[in-house]
Amino acid sequence: MTFDATPVLAAVAGGTGHDIPAFLLTLAAILVGAKLFGELAERIGQPAVLGELVAGVLLGSSALGVIPAAGPTAEVITILAELGVLILLFEIGLETDLREMRRVGSSAVAVAGVGVVLPFLAGYLYWSNVPHGMGDPTTLSTAAVFIGAALTATSVGITARVLSDLSSLGSTEGRIIIGAAVLDDVLGLVILTVVSGIAAGGSVSPYGVARILAVAVGFLVVAIAIGGWVAPRLFTVVARMKDSYATPIIALALSFGLAALADLAGSALIMGAFAAGIIFARTEQANAIEHRVRPVGALLTPIFFVSVGSSLDVNLLNPMRPGGASLLLVALGLTALAILGKVAAGYAAPWARFRRLAVGVGMVPRGEVGLIFADVGRRSGLLTDDVFSVVLLMVMGTTFVAPPLLKLLFRGEPSGATPEPAR
Amino acid sequence: MTFDATPVLAAVAGGTGHDIPAFLLTLAAILVGAKLFGELAERIGQPAVLGELVAGVLLGSSALGVIPAAGPTAEVITILAELGVLILLFEIGLETDLREMRRVGSSAVAVAGVGVVLPFLAGYLYWSNVPHGMGDPTTLSTAAVFIGAALTATSVGITARVLSDLSSLGSTEGRIIIGAAVLDDVLGLVILTVVSGIAAGGSVSPYGVARILAVAVGFLVVAIAIGGWVAPRLFTVVARMKDSYATPIIALALSFGLAALADLAGSALIMGAFAAGIIFARTEQANAIEHRVRPVGALLTPIFFVSVGSSLDVNLLNPMRPGGASLLLVALGLTALAILGKVAAGYAAPWARFRRLAVGVGMVPRGEVGLIFADVGRRSGLLTDDVFSVVLLMVMGTTFVAPPLLKLLFRGEPSGATPEPAR
Repeated sequence: MTFDATPVLAAVAGGTGHDIPAFLLTLAAILVGAKLFGELAERIGQPAVLGELVAGVLLGSSALGVIPAAGPTAEVITILAELGVLILLFEIGLETDLREMRRVGSSAVAVAGVGVVLPFLAGYLYWSNVPHGMGDPTTLSTAAVFIGAALTATSVGITARVLSDLSSLGSTEGRIIIGAAVLDDVLGLVILTVVSGIAAGGSVSPYGVARILAVAVGFLVVAIAIGGWVAPRLFTVVARMKDSYATPIIALALSFGLAALADLAGSALIMGAFAAGIIFARTEQANAIEHRVRPVGALLTPIFFVSVGSSLDVNLLNPMRPGGASLLLVALGLTALAILGKVAAGYAAPWARFRRLAVGVGMVPRGEVGLIFADVGRRSGLLTDDVFSVVLLMVMGTTFVAPPLLKLLFRGEPSGATPEPAR
Repeated sequence: MTFDATPVLAAVAGGTGHDIPAFLLTLAAILVGAKLFGELAERIGQPAVLGELVAGVLLGSSALGVIPAAGPTAEVITILAELGVLILLFEIGLETDLREMRRVGSSAVAVAGVGVVLPFLAGYLYWSNVPHGMGDPTTLSTAAVFIGAALTATSVGITARVLSDLSSLGSTEGRIIIGAAVLDDVLGLVILTVVSGIAAGGSVSPYGVARILAVAVGFLVVAIAIGGWVAPRLFTVVARMKDSYATPIIALALSFGLAALADLAGSALIMGAFAAGIIFARTEQANAIEHRVRPVGALLTPIFFVSVGSSLDVNLLNPMRPGGASLLLVALGLTALAILGKVAAGYAAPWARFRRLAVGVGMVPRGEVGLIFADVGRRSGLLTDDVFSVVLLMVMGTTFVAPPLLKLLFRGEPSGATPEPAR
């Protein structure tokens, strides 16, 4: 008997605290839903992650309401989801061969760069020129900056998971996509800071932008350099510990630590986890770590995808509500631009040989970053709730459209697929 | 890039939210500390769990202060610890052979019964008769009821983990201890309700007590009966799913669900997780489930033990502070009674053959239940902070004294040890 008497305690002594039974039921529903809909997706020839997103939509507060939108349970689910995406990026790092990554480096840089600039311009021009009847004309061009920014950053989590479901993380295209998506994150951080400065009404100095860029890139480089020297030496000692779980758990702990450091240094949490994976990929214990971290990831990463799905408000999809049809139409246009912009980025790097459509489509899914841009805009009063909804629909649209397309494009994979999936 | 922009967002828009980097650093420290001190404990011939408890004391808010006593990080750590103990009990259930359990049933009932009555009486008489200079004489006998109650319930988590570390869960003594500890929990629930009634100033009807007892026992019986019929049939279907993690994750989800149901039905969370383990032990997928749940348990259960350790206020151990020496002395007396009472319980069930000292010592560790009793008493104003500290010291004392003694008693294990540890 552990914290079990909490309800009695609360009743007797007026104490508060998390409602643990409610949290456990929500968690159980998320896990069962993820597995059932993941299976369903696979049975109809789609990646499992698509099913997990659908499960999230159904369990979300706007549909069945099993996952609350706010409150203590929602907070804990968010943290578990965050741990899930960190472990996913750690696993992806573990499977990343840095030399192979360098080989596709120039292609990844080109794809990332074009994939940020084109969607930004497309979003900005769409919002400031095409009549959509939303927002105040005086703030229109600032709002357009937000819309453009929201179109820039690829969600590395979703793309990586789809490629992993398809056993295509190790293909040339897979490596370019992951490399470009990671760089996208770096650029996303820079843009977010600029946009945040605009939202706060201040100005952003070129020096400030350069500093953020340097920190974000520098963190990755320094962490991998130092970690790559320390980790193999440290883990020769750790591997001698009697507990066979000491190695994977200390590795995981260090990846959580590196994630926190990345954030504190001004980079992003998942960059730290990814760097940790790359570092441990070069230790002799890489396989042992991967083997024992995988079941933990298998439990926690679906929580992330269900959680992403649950953020969709299904009421937005109803064309019958007032203004619903025009909002859907505007969102559809933005989604089309979001898809085209990234697909076009696949045709960057003319010097290299790879399947360009596959890379472009792999960059399509946008994630929370887009939502964060929109959220900053909404909180600062520059974007209305309707505009926020449009961005939300764009993010969901790109997220749902990419997995089936990727499945189609990576089917009959010709080159260098990794034999084992990360899942 | 996921929730990474949170700091920027918070800075820009004044948003709040959990401090994820701080949480990740705390989590990393807990995991690394647990593994290092667990290793240290094993090197000096002690069970790993003792090292984890020590790591908790050192990381706790009264020592290094890495684990905060309150706040969002503390709450999330508590929930992860709770998941850890649920998974531990699920694993123990998975390794429990119900027929073997029935074979030791009468011994377990006798040990549990004597092990509740003797410590209760010892605690009550000690507090109401031996001069200790604490508390108001008018509430002395009520306070003595709380002290007695706090001495009753064994912490099944700690004992099970020690036995698992020693590969002795499957021995006759191991089965009796687990069985009696589970029954202790049932009795603990009943006592808690009675004591809570006293704290609230009300009276407790014999009908109410009987009802709680019936619900707690009934839940276990009904859950195992229904689950034992449904689970093998359900999991023949689940095992056909393409994702090889579907089986263990759905099993874990159902155990979380059963834990929540147990709590809602008036039983205890961990009873539900234990019942789920027993149910799945009888499916064909038991081994597959155990194999894949173990790495998750290896990550989460140490968080529980570190968390328990962190609740000790090391300042209480200082005999130099005012009243410190007498408080330590009173606590020492209570701890001695707590140990003797449970050791004596090992000599119940004269009809059965087992190593009585080993069983008695196995029942010694008290856990959060003791603290909950003390907490109810403190909140209702019947116990002073000093008395609460005495109970806390008693709980910690029994927790720290049992692992080395058990190690000694189970060394050179003669009969039927399970070949593989649960860790």
